[in-house]
Amino acid sequence: MNWKKSSEAINKYSLIKFRPRSFQKSTRLFIFITMKFEVTILGSSSATPVFNRNPSAQLLNCNEKYYLIDCGEGTQQQFTKYNLKAARIDCIFISHLHGDHYFGLIGLLSSLHLNGRMKPMQIFAPKPLLEILEIQFKYSDTVLRYPIEFFPIEADESRQIFENQDLIVKTIVLNHRIPTTGFIFQQKQRQRKIIKDKAESVPMVYYTALKKGLDVELPNGEILKSEDYTTPADPPRSYAYCSDTMYDERYFSVIKGCDTLYHEATFMHELLDRANETHHTTALQAGEIAKISSVKRLIIGHFSSRYKTLQMLLEEAQSVFEHTELAVEGRTFQL
Amino acid sequence: MNWKKSSEAINKYSLIKFRPRSFQKSTRLFIFITMKFEVTILGSSSATPVFNRNPSAQLLNCNEKYYLIDCGEGTQQQFTKYNLKAARIDCIFISHLHGDHYFGLIGLLSSLHLNGRMKPMQIFAPKPLLEILEIQFKYSDTVLRYPIEFFPIEADESRQIFENQDLIVKTIVLNHRIPTTGFIFQQKQRQRKIIKDKAESVPMVYYTALKKGLDVELPNGEILKSEDYTTPADPPRSYAYCSDTMYDERYFSVIKGCDTLYHEATFMHELLDRANETHHTTALQAGEIAKISSVKRLIIGHFSSRYKTLQMLLEEAQSVFEHTELAVEGRTFQL
Repeated sequence: MNWKKSSEAINKYSLIKFRPRSFQKSTRLFIFITMKFEVTILGSSSATPVFNRNPSAQLLNCNEKYYLIDCGEGTQQQFTKYNLKAARIDCIFISHLHGDHYFGLIGLLSSLHLNGRMKPMQIFAPKPLLEILEIQFKYSDTVLRYPIEFFPIEADESRQIFENQDLIVKTIVLNHRIPTTGFIFQQKQRQRKIIKDKAESVPMVYYTALKKGLDVELPNGEILKSEDYTTPADPPRSYAYCSDTMYDERYFSVIKGCDTLYHEATFMHELLDRANETHHTTALQAGEIAKISSVKRLIIGHFSSRYKTLQMLLEEAQSVFEHTELAVEGRTFQL
Repeated sequence: MNWKKSSEAINKYSLIKFRPRSFQKSTRLFIFITMKFEVTILGSSSATPVFNRNPSAQLLNCNEKYYLIDCGEGTQQQFTKYNLKAARIDCIFISHLHGDHYFGLIGLLSSLHLNGRMKPMQIFAPKPLLEILEIQFKYSDTVLRYPIEFFPIEADESRQIFENQDLIVKTIVLNHRIPTTGFIFQQKQRQRKIIKDKAESVPMVYYTALKKGLDVELPNGEILKSEDYTTPADPPRSYAYCSDTMYDERYFSVIKGCDTLYHEATFMHELLDRANETHHTTALQAGEIAKISSVKRLIIGHFSSRYKTLQMLLEEAQSVFEHTELAVEGRTFQL
């Protein structure tokens, strides 16, 4: 049990009861832990890996469920490097079939197989990816121990492709040289928050109902009103991932108002012609897109290998949209 | 110019003339450089990458020509890590189609394309690899700037598959779960070596003939006998690469007497049953194979991820064949 972590997380969303065996039965210790919604950058290089920058991959952690976004070569090694458990991934989203966004997938899936995975893996990706995977499993004579549930993505219009108790995922139709979609991850309506001081006198069995906004009648007839024991839920948050794309107003409506936007910023604006030619975005444009779309925060990434340092890309984006950060490898952003 | 390196290499095989611009024209400076024959380990992990051990890949440098042997995921990143120029590779040899031996190839080839390569790349590999590459180039809409010359390998009998001025490469038919070949790299007959003290009085234009064993007649009628100005050539050396395979006497004759044998040693001998089941070799068996085949040196690799340290594998092989070394990542072996 990581006490420090739990202590820091007090006053956050969800609530669990924790009874160390060494405690007397009469001791009830409540530990409030956060409902996680964070993304870790596993790679932010465009096209080719460079020293200290791997190709695109991000790990979204939503309430301790792992979602992988893109999977450039070496992604499984990045999991090891950053002490993350690849086995915990349940869903993988691949934006498009340029190699710097998926060449690491076959290796990751193979290693999960070799390490004994049994639970299904859901993959949301352009349809031909399944053919690419199958041919490689065929010639290596590999029959996976676990099922792959493959959901082909069409890049024609934005649509919802995933939903569970925590998240809704929609595609964002981007403008790149081949069919490409971004993804917007939207938390679902969250629960009301227990008021800590009052909660200690209430049996935990009633928390679920109270957090849902329901009033509770106790066996003695006493009514516990949800509004007396809880505060309103935090608003659900959203994270949009846009890579690769050129500046195109058609997708701005989908990302409008999202809390955090990851947007590619392959080039400095002095290379706008090159950006247009290769269907990429400049750092200045990424800032403009964030501003126009009224997002709360911008993270830029997918940096060209020509940039040995990234500060000037950051400053260019910040000249338009101040609240911009760099997708530095290994960094985790709370969303 | 790396003076230290050149100085160390004196008395080695080949000879070049070097005239720094700052030197007076009358100054003739001879620098003897070695004819390189060395291999650098880029990965030696079996099946899955583990911390500090990438999947299989080795870079053979023969007289400053680069030959890549297998190409596990992350190999291109290893080139960056060890400050090697992937652009200098001209030939790639792939032993078989288990992913830990080729998943890095598509990324490497793509990056060479993006970095502007124009010269051909020769690939020697099982035939289906071409289909695997082509389907990925197709869906990423990639037309390589450089030609791939693909030479399919049959794993039915040992045969010569490559020859240039420096090397002959033959296949070794191994015993694995899918068709697999090793490779034996044999230097061609080498040239006689110039005797340094005498060479300074001889115009360099005659060196080539003298090193080939030919006598030379000067314009004044004087005869320069090759045997007076040269010593016999070093015997050509050979390097055998055997991964993946189980112990099988049928290939011992092909590697017999080679100077350096790289042999997989996936498991300790206590896991012999597992080795047989998965068609791999134990460290003890690798030592036995080196001994039976009368090789001069053994390098073991392809270590199971279960081994956090490798010393016990080394000691097990050395208990049978003393001159054994570990394929530690980043290490270069002079062959």
